[in-house]
Amino acid sequence: MNARALPTTVEEIRLAAHVASELRPEHFETVRVPLRRAGVGQVLVRNLLLRVAAVTRTLMAPERVLPMAPYRPGRALGGAALGQVVEAPGTGLRPGELVRHDYGWQQYALLPSASVRRVDPARWPDPAACLSQGFVGWLAVDRTGVRAGDTVLVTGAAGGVGTVAGQFARLRGAGRLIGTTSARWKAERLRRELGFDAVLVRGQGPIAEQLRAAAPEGVDVLVDTVGGEQFEAALSCARRGARCAVVGAVGRQAGGGTRAQATLDTLAMFSGGISVQGLTVRDHQASAARWEAEFSAGLREGRLRFPHVRLAGLGQAPGALLDLLAGRHLGTVLVETHW
Amino acid sequence: MNARALPTTVEEIRLAAHVASELRPEHFETVRVPLRRAGVGQVLVRNLLLRVAAVTRTLMAPERVLPMAPYRPGRALGGAALGQVVEAPGTGLRPGELVRHDYGWQQYALLPSASVRRVDPARWPDPAACLSQGFVGWLAVDRTGVRAGDTVLVTGAAGGVGTVAGQFARLRGAGRLIGTTSARWKAERLRRELGFDAVLVRGQGPIAEQLRAAAPEGVDVLVDTVGGEQFEAALSCARRGARCAVVGAVGRQAGGGTRAQATLDTLAMFSGGISVQGLTVRDHQASAARWEAEFSAGLREGRLRFPHVRLAGLGQAPGALLDLLAGRHLGTVLVETHW
Repeated sequence: MNARALPTTVEEIRLAAHVASELRPEHFETVRVPLRRAGVGQVLVRNLLLRVAAVTRTLMAPERVLPMAPYRPGRALGGAALGQVVEAPGTGLRPGELVRHDYGWQQYALLPSASVRRVDPARWPDPAACLSQGFVGWLAVDRTGVRAGDTVLVTGAAGGVGTVAGQFARLRGAGRLIGTTSARWKAERLRRELGFDAVLVRGQGPIAEQLRAAAPEGVDVLVDTVGGEQFEAALSCARRGARCAVVGAVGRQAGGGTRAQATLDTLAMFSGGISVQGLTVRDHQASAARWEAEFSAGLREGRLRFPHVRLAGLGQAPGALLDLLAGRHLGTVLVETHW
Repeated sequence: MNARALPTTVEEIRLAAHVASELRPEHFETVRVPLRRAGVGQVLVRNLLLRVAAVTRTLMAPERVLPMAPYRPGRALGGAALGQVVEAPGTGLRPGELVRHDYGWQQYALLPSASVRRVDPARWPDPAACLSQGFVGWLAVDRTGVRAGDTVLVTGAAGGVGTVAGQFARLRGAGRLIGTTSARWKAERLRRELGFDAVLVRGQGPIAEQLRAAAPEGVDVLVDTVGGEQFEAALSCARRGARCAVVGAVGRQAGGGTRAQATLDTLAMFSGGISVQGLTVRDHQASAARWEAEFSAGLREGRLRFPHVRLAGLGQAPGALLDLLAGRHLGTVLVETHW
């Protein structure tokens, strides 16, 4: 794309007001702003794909819940994005190169060059896969040391994290792979397309009872993206030496409430030698290269899939976030931000 | 001791009845039984010291709470013991050798030789120290990787586990060492004799508030022997990347109740990269030699202490257990079982 083809104004989606309880369309504001050009050391990126994720909802709250600054009303929302360099004077970046960054809720992003990372298109069958949320799911499987024969439970199995975590657990030899999700249609797809042996459906009776039936000998590994009742149920079915990774709290993030609160019995934890580990991508950047290598190789060789949804047009992003929180998608949710 | 000096009858203390709620003296029954002699492959041990510990209370309950069989009414209670071999025909053990075993609530124990372990008296300034409960406390410090400058919280700091864990945390470089206990006199001794910087006293206001005042910058490592409110308070003050080891649940073990129940927020756990690990000696026997070497060397060289109480006479054991659960002792509680 040459400079003459650039539009003079572009769209971005801003936080209209902090979200104290239920997220509604009015919390988003779409505005058209003049396109600013890159100065020396800056990069102007034409965004291609935006990843819509629950963390955006969490950062729309007024209070600080995560160790990241909440979004501010009147400013563009953030989210992982894939884009193409338009201009980047005085940097090593060339027009046309693919890059990733965290400023996706806009058609164009103007950033310091240190805020973008190159994406090698030769590595990925589809570069969109570099926006997978699977890193933390892979990390959970890696750090819990899933081994041959383990019974593994993935809560929120149909999410962007869970769909990848389940596949890696299977690759590492999980003997029995169980998921939880919110709807029968997702349970069916998880069994048919992603190799889950059993999927528990929220609302079809207490999760602990469903889990006891699905895993009568108990759970060796938990990959938890939900929290609350599902976390408690997993712990109540934990086998001796069970390893649990907590990598999300969609139960709380979706509602802005306290459903990630869970009660546990520390006597059972110590006598059972059970561990629970909170993991974030941020704390494990040293493992990012290994994750990307394993995931991209698996995709190239057809051993892994990148389940995702792709919606056309930046204007779909608010609705996509609402739908994601309501459990209406399977896999990572991407929005094509160009038009 | 030669065989002619052996008594014909000896005392043992039995579980009179399962303990459903509060432990009382009537739950113990002291009986005099004929002394049985060792056959081939057996060892007759004259017990010297019995370790009284909260786990005995837990195993007196009718239901199975731990992965160990509960005690049965009409049978002798169990507990770690140090004794001297009286006779051991057809085994490698010689009369007079010191051994450890788990059958301490009796003056003499008749056991298969595989149930005893030799104790090297040259290793210990006082062989009683081999009955320290510190192994799991050391394990907690080791597995949480206490490092220079860490703020470490030890709950139940005056117990047999806590007194040793605190000392090892300091040896590994803890910058600030905080304990919790149930009485001012124990807090005073922990500060004066065992190097704690601050000790919170149960009943002197909410533990979380006391902890925020004692550790305004938060807690890096938790060694938890209590559970319940104290575990919750520690998690509410956990710093990014905090590592927690759960090695006991005295709060529940003492009352037979549910005070080890704790509520946690898995969103805070994952966003803070916090881990909680249940540890038992049973699962970590491979580390026992390293623990013994570090502890005995520290005692010999005067860098460590073995805080303990020593009471004279097997008949004191029931009262010692009641007193232990009521928090009336500091350190490991030993009863001299000979007379």
